[in-house]
Amino acid sequence: MIEYRDLRIAILGAGSVGAQVARLLLEHRQELSDRVGAGLQLVGVAVRDLDAPRTAEIPRELLTTDARSLILGADIVIELMGGIEPAREYLALALNSGADVITANKALLATHGPELFEIAEQVGAQLYYEAAVGGAIPIIRPLRDSLAGDRVRRILGIVNGTTNYILDRMDTEGDSLEEALDAATRLGYAEADPTADIGGFDAAHKAAILASLAFHTTVPLDAVHREGIEHVTHAQVEGAKHAGYVVKLLAVCERLTDPETGAEGVSARVHPALVPIGHPLAAVRGVNNAVFLEAEAAGSLMFYGAGAGGVETASAVLGDLVSAARRHVIGGPGITESTHGELPVLPITSVVTRYQITLQVADRPGVLATIATMFSDHGVSVEAVQQSVPEQAAEGEPDATATLVIGTHRATEAALAATVMALRAGDVVTEVTSVLRVEGL
Amino acid sequence: MIEYRDLRIAILGAGSVGAQVARLLLEHRQELSDRVGAGLQLVGVAVRDLDAPRTAEIPRELLTTDARSLILGADIVIELMGGIEPAREYLALALNSGADVITANKALLATHGPELFEIAEQVGAQLYYEAAVGGAIPIIRPLRDSLAGDRVRRILGIVNGTTNYILDRMDTEGDSLEEALDAATRLGYAEADPTADIGGFDAAHKAAILASLAFHTTVPLDAVHREGIEHVTHAQVEGAKHAGYVVKLLAVCERLTDPETGAEGVSARVHPALVPIGHPLAAVRGVNNAVFLEAEAAGSLMFYGAGAGGVETASAVLGDLVSAARRHVIGGPGITESTHGELPVLPITSVVTRYQITLQVADRPGVLATIATMFSDHGVSVEAVQQSVPEQAAEGEPDATATLVIGTHRATEAALAATVMALRAGDVVTEVTSVLRVEGL
Repeated sequence: MIEYRDLRIAILGAGSVGAQVARLLLEHRQELSDRVGAGLQLVGVAVRDLDAPRTAEIPRELLTTDARSLILGADIVIELMGGIEPAREYLALALNSGADVITANKALLATHGPELFEIAEQVGAQLYYEAAVGGAIPIIRPLRDSLAGDRVRRILGIVNGTTNYILDRMDTEGDSLEEALDAATRLGYAEADPTADIGGFDAAHKAAILASLAFHTTVPLDAVHREGIEHVTHAQVEGAKHAGYVVKLLAVCERLTDPETGAEGVSARVHPALVPIGHPLAAVRGVNNAVFLEAEAAGSLMFYGAGAGGVETASAVLGDLVSAARRHVIGGPGITESTHGELPVLPITSVVTRYQITLQVADRPGVLATIATMFSDHGVSVEAVQQSVPEQAAEGEPDATATLVIGTHRATEAALAATVMALRAGDVVTEVTSVLRVEGL
Repeated sequence: MIEYRDLRIAILGAGSVGAQVARLLLEHRQELSDRVGAGLQLVGVAVRDLDAPRTAEIPRELLTTDARSLILGADIVIELMGGIEPAREYLALALNSGADVITANKALLATHGPELFEIAEQVGAQLYYEAAVGGAIPIIRPLRDSLAGDRVRRILGIVNGTTNYILDRMDTEGDSLEEALDAATRLGYAEADPTADIGGFDAAHKAAILASLAFHTTVPLDAVHREGIEHVTHAQVEGAKHAGYVVKLLAVCERLTDPETGAEGVSARVHPALVPIGHPLAAVRGVNNAVFLEAEAAGSLMFYGAGAGGVETASAVLGDLVSAARRHVIGGPGITESTHGELPVLPITSVVTRYQITLQVADRPGVLATIATMFSDHGVSVEAVQQSVPEQAAEGEPDATATLVIGTHRATEAALAATVMALRAGDVVTEVTSVLRVEGL
């Protein structure tokens, strides 16, 4: 075997993931070098503050505040600082200097991915990002390589551990959203400002990345329909449980037919959804993540594991490092981003799914018929209705209201939205309490 | 982009997988070619009988009985004939002629893998085998690449769909082994001669492949301890259910410490085992497969999906085809087998796990104490004992027997075997009804 010079590795950022990558790289240097066939030398870790506390100790002489010089002397640059700038600038600098780049930065990939992939292709460098979605779970590589000969139809992903923990607590502990968020914050699962998680922004970044990869099509972040869990109520979670569902924040990426043109397109969306209790995704508890995938030939597949955590995510980063380093040793330009599909990205109104709508209605004869007509007038077919009359309401009283839970067959978002608007405008519905999509049926 | 000549693809075998690969390759030729950046031309399918019925129609002019000529004119050879010979000879011929090779042949890999990998390395060709384990489930690539920077501690795999279907039916339908096997045969899940599945041979092949890959160490087939499900009784399955377990045929690959030398080693074994009902593997029903994996950094991961089936397995084969074809277009020698670890492969006696032992004992005072002493004398620590006296046995009768179900703490196989031998030799145990390992606790 040809002896190969040591490969120079630079890490940008020494937060929870960066510090663990540095630790594992130093501790397992010999084993990793054996797997690569060349020495792996950590040449430095760029940080903002040399004295900040870390989850793992990094030798003082490896720390530097001069990221640019570090990047220019490295063969492989691992970016774990997060945020858009200066991460974007640093990665562009690294790629342009010929270094391969590894990142776990989903926000950067979802917003500036195409720009970075283009630089990489021009200079013949590689951009790896297994850790950007699903933490330790191998999902990027299976999508890019293992399923490259298949046609992915749909992805249902639980890709944000914080919101899954919160929804799980609301389901199992009976917590309100606020109580569950407090618990998540206490345990370190939620950040001081939880907006990125709760608002579905983090999941939307991941949906854009997954959809782009699965459909060989650039899906920009602003084409991802996004709803967070901020309006999920304890009543919804309880109601779901009684009806045989669990509420999950899902990233849904799918192939669609444009209802107007009949052309094939793709869609990506993030929102709370009802998942049947028997579906494998319903069993994904706590901060775990899972990606459930339907492909034309492969059928249903699921990938499950720890979606976050410093050391878990470090596993995915080090897998990318071994891949990148092997490429240095054995040569070859590697794999470029595949966007030959370039299918149109359709808006949420084109999506077809099932819905569960909870209504407060005047409890008088003929109401159900009126409401059923409003659904069918808008082309939404009702599958099941469950009516419950509050005990305290005496029968026949003019003010009495009943609760209707309506499950629909598959209908477009546009038809459903028009139905809900009509329900709100009419005089038989006193309140539309909840509208949830049902996925995985 | 540089125009690349069409790549010439040959398929050996047109059984349930081969026919589907040919169909999908012909149907999706343009899409797959776009992903590769070069045309993919199916130049022929080698079969034994030109007129045999197939699950998908293959144009007559593509069929040939002359496998050797077909191989020598191909850039990529896909072997889906199964069996050892002539598959081994054909793959060696293909590799020696410089073709890349794709196979789903686990028996061949488990017995002649090292030989084929060596030829591939010498000539700079590649050997892909994603479809050999777990059918459509991407498991080879995640193990080889995604987890390349981590250290796999243990793999628990349900890697044989036939036996999982049979055990599942025994659990859910109350079938005997024979009844469940009959049902599996009727549904086409079991072959006319079910020995390879029932006897655990198929699972042992896969265990050898997974262990070799996960531990970077050649694990020969004859080092895999193998027990099939032929002796699993309905009573064991029922008893497991009452105790909160499911019986699964598991492939267990793990890092171990040699109890004699203290050195690190690895072990691979296949046997029926009790899996706690709350473990993700317990939910794997019917003919599905799943691989549950524990790695040092990544924590627990699970990969789940269809473990067999023509079209599902074809998905994995086509993923390998795209990988192989991309390598032709973009160059680079690809990845060679990593066996630098070369850890010793330890015998089953070195394995440490938990056990559940069911005994028929004479129902008289002091028996439990006697038995407990026999366990502790051999260094096996009892965790729990459950005793049930048959209703028909009047108390104090000399012939009355009781059933004892004993759960142990972790102990070596050697210690457990010695304990069971002592139990059989003594006069208080009338029968050792069942000894099962407990995994996933």
